[in-house]
Formats: sequence, structure tokens, C-alpha cells
Amino acid sequence: MKIPFTKMHGLGNNYIYIDGFETKINEELLPQLSQAVSDVNTGIGSDGLILMLPSTNADVRMRIFNKDGSEAMNCGNGLRCVAKLAYDSGYVPKEQFQIEAKSGVVEAEVVVIDGIVEQVTIDMGEPILQREQIPMVTANYTNETVINEKFPVGDQDLFATAVSMGNPHVIFYVEDINDAPIDTVGPEVTSDARFPEGVNVEFVEVLNDHEINFRVWERGSGITQACGTGACASVVASVLNNYVKRGESVTVHLDGGDLTITWEENGHVMMKGPAVNVAEGIYFLKT
Amino acid sequence: MKIPFTKMHGLGNNYIYIDGFETKINEELLPQLSQAVSDVNTGIGSDGLILMLPSTNADVRMRIFNKDGSEAMNCGNGLRCVAKLAYDSGYVPKEQFQIEAKSGVVEAEVVVIDGIVEQVTIDMGEPILQREQIPMVTANYTNETVINEKFPVGDQDLFATAVSMGNPHVIFYVEDINDAPIDTVGPEVTSDARFPEGVNVEFVEVLNDHEINFRVWERGSGITQACGTGACASVVASVLNNYVKRGESVTVHLDGGDLTITWEENGHVMMKGPAVNVAEGIYFLKT
Repeated sequence: MKIPFTKMHGLGNNYIYIDGFETKINEELLPQLSQAVSDVNTGIGSDGLILMLPSTNADVRMRIFNKDGSEAMNCGNGLRCVAKLAYDSGYVPKEQFQIEAKSGVVEAEVVVIDGIVEQVTIDMGEPILQREQIPMVTANYTNETVINEKFPVGDQDLFATAVSMGNPHVIFYVEDINDAPIDTVGPEVTSDARFPEGVNVEFVEVLNDHEINFRVWERGSGITQACGTGACASVVASVLNNYVKRGESVTVHLDGGDLTITWEENGHVMMKGPAVNVAEGIYFLKT
Repeated sequence: MKIPFTKMHGLGNNYIYIDGFETKINEELLPQLSQAVSDVNTGIGSDGLILMLPSTNADVRMRIFNKDGSEAMNCGNGLRCVAKLAYDSGYVPKEQFQIEAKSGVVEAEVVVIDGIVEQVTIDMGEPILQREQIPMVTANYTNETVINEKFPVGDQDLFATAVSMGNPHVIFYVEDINDAPIDTVGPEVTSDARFPEGVNVEFVEVLNDHEINFRVWERGSGITQACGTGACASVVASVLNNYVKRGESVTVHLDGGDLTITWEENGHVMMKGPAVNVAEGIYFLKT
């Protein structure tokens, strides 16, 4: 079976994209296709498969399949790539539009240079700061929010700020990102009982009031090149700790590249970053 | 820069192939291109880059670049894929032909089904059995060859058979391939001082006189899905140990799939196996 594809990445988070306006694939084939095409040895190689589809309640719809064939709710880096693909392919002939993901509808805005999308801003919605909604469980707490709160790990006293962007994040500030104890604190805190649904563990070095360094231990994945929701959470946390300002854009340096993030006065977090076209062609699925 | 490519694999050993008859790429760009295209996060994802080129002393020429940009001498799985690509593209309109690699010219024969190459046999040349040419260094040895010879590793006495196929291999026989101590003996023996140039470490379970199971710790790579020269060496070793017969084909079950190998009466080792077309398209190189 011949399947037309585009490979794209956002900060190294890479998927095989299929234009579902043109190419129809049977529902029951999708998990197997995602597994096969993602395998770098016998397929193309990717973090999974993303379908771009017509939508009945937005301008375009995305469905994300992980490498293991399971369907994902959402992916910030994937949203930027779908926005680029939808605009560059001519399906959505406007610069502001809506994308439907399994987790809901989001607003996207593309930056077009020479007719091609180079950057995309995604409205990532409002952060959740209430401890129990993150969710985080703490005995005898006094504050509803978790901002620079003593958080013992082993025999150390760390100071935690916790933010949900639909998924839970805990942020620790460090003097130098290169010395962040990500290998040790990451795996320990990600499954800490104080976070009943697990947590993404982030380390942030504040460079100045418009720029931070960021590294992440992702829940279920370990160290990754980039985590869009984590970068958003880290900017919210940095506003809460008065390192950066609400309503002003902050450049977040991740291992995979830069994102520009603003926690707007209206409460929404806007994430702007690149979307890159790597290759396009035909994949030969063996069935 | 837009570069037409084909992704192919042989037993999971996968490369990006470029048709150098059609596409000319500057010499100084090749290492960078191999690194970029091989990166699964920001490129396509592969073990490296292979160019198919015109040859002055064979029917077709191949050049292999590793993931790190260095140029390799040869690759058995790559030879099968180049043979398929050269035949299927129409550049070499015959079923027996010669391929020039950096290490020399080899004979190839393709098995064509419905006009498409499915299997390829490569003449892998003659094995080298002389201890000092493998090279292997042993104090006070009595035999020129190394066949089922006591080989202490740590506090165990293993029994080694050593064969060079242009690169050095040591073979250990086990009762059950699933219990082969590849994780421990592999890394220890690969850099053992008795093999001054290092060695590929192979474990073989003999199923019957036409079939063996095989796993490998590759020199410089660790456990891999497949090693063509290792599979050849293991059949030569199995003839030397009287497990299988000279001149008869032996099916070798590797982690990545099967190879059929014959140590011919004329001394040459013939390796037959699959070559698979995964995808084709255009790669967008950022320069």
C-alpha cells in the first residue's frame, strides 16, 4: 500500500504527517501504520503518526498516534506542524484559524515568510494553579497555590512551583542549567506520591527577565529535547516567582531549540515556535 | 536544497539511498548530509547515507557514509539494497553484476519477482582462518586455526572459533540462543587484548544441519539486529565444527530476519537475503 507522507518536526519532536483530505486510511489500520512507519529500522522513523483531517467544528482536525499505536490527546509541537501543513497545502487560506485535537479546539496563528509558514503561535489556554487540580497532594498546607514551596526530596530541601497546563508540571530553579540534577531528581520526583497522576519535572535557569534556560524529565518518557506544555508552565512559574513579567514575551531555550512564550493579561498562555518540513514522499506499507 | 532519496533496509540495517546517476552532490557536503539525514529527530532517521554511482570498473558503485559522517569500507546489507536499487531503477539490466565498494568489487545476483528484486545474493569472498591474520594473538599456540579452542573469560572457560570475513569474528556455541550471555561476554570480549583490532562477538545455537540461531555484539556498536559478515563467519565456523556441511545452504536466524548462507566448495561464502524499499521522496536539506 502506497501512502503519501510528509515528515515534520517542531524542536526535534517529529512525526509522519498524512494529509487525510486526500488519503483515506481505514481506522483499524492506524495503530499498525503508526507503529510500522515510526520504526527507524524497518520504517521511516518518528515519534508517531499525525493525521490532518477535515473538521466539523474547526478549520482543520488533527489525530495523533504514538509510536506504540495508542492515540494521544494533544501535542504542542504537533499542533504547530499541522498549522503549517494546513496553511502551506492551501486547505486553510487564512493566518488565524482553529485546530481540533482530541483534547479540544485551539487557536493557531501562522507567521508566513515568502508564502511558507515559518513560525506558529498556539493559544495553549489558561494554566491551572490550584493544588488539588494540578493534582498535588500535600498534608496540612496553608496556600491554595504551590509557589516556591519547600519540597523535600531524599535528604535535600528543594523549592517547588507547580502548574498544570492540562497536564501536571513541577518547576525547580537552578543557578546553572548544566548542573541541574535532572538524572537523579527527574526520575525520583516524576513518580513521587505527592503527585498522584505523576508529574513532568522541569529545571529552569533564569538568564534575565525575558529569557530562561529549560530542561525537562517528561512523565513516561524521561529526558526529552522539548516539551511545549512544560515550557509554558515554566514561564507561568517564572511570573509567579517574579522572575519575568505577565504580558511580556519570554524566550525559553530548550535542548531542541527556542520557544517564545507569553502569559497574557487575559490568562491565556501563547506559545510561538518553529515548524519544519523535513521530507515528503511515498511510504510503502507492507501488509 | 531538495534531494531525491529512497529509504531501504536489509534486516533492519537501514540507509538513505541517493541515486548519484541523477543527483550530483558536492563532495564536501556528503559528511554533513549523512549526519543531517540520519538524525531521526530533525532528519529522516537512518544508520547513514549510501550513494549509488556510476563505476569505471564494475556495473555500479556504492559509497557508504556512517551516521557520524565518516566513510565506511563496505556493508553487506547495503550491498543487497544497492543491487536492488540498481536493477529496479533500470541502470543495470541483468541479474548478475558487479558492485564496486571502497573495499573492492563484489559479485551480486538478484532474484526478481514480478519485475522487482526481492532477494539478493552477494559473494562475500573467502574467509580468513589463520590466527595471526584474523588477527588474534595467543601465547604458545599449537594450531594455526582457532576451532573450538579453550578461551578463558573471567573465571569461565569458553570455547572459541575465530574467523575473519575481512573483519574479525569470534563465535561461541550455546544450547539456547535466549540464554546467550551477550550482555556480559559481548562487551568484555569485543575489546579483549587477544584480539588486537577488537572483534565482533557472536553466539550461535545450532538447530539442525541447515539452520542456526544467531545473535551478535558488533565491534563499536553493541547488540545489533543483524551483521551480514557475522552471519557468514558463523556458518564457516559451523562447518569447521562439523555442525553443518560445506557446499550446502544454511538458514541463519538473526534478530532482524533471515539470511541464507553457503560456504561453497570453491572457498567463497555466498550470502542471500532480502532488500526492502521503505519509502521514497524528497529530503529538504537545510544549509
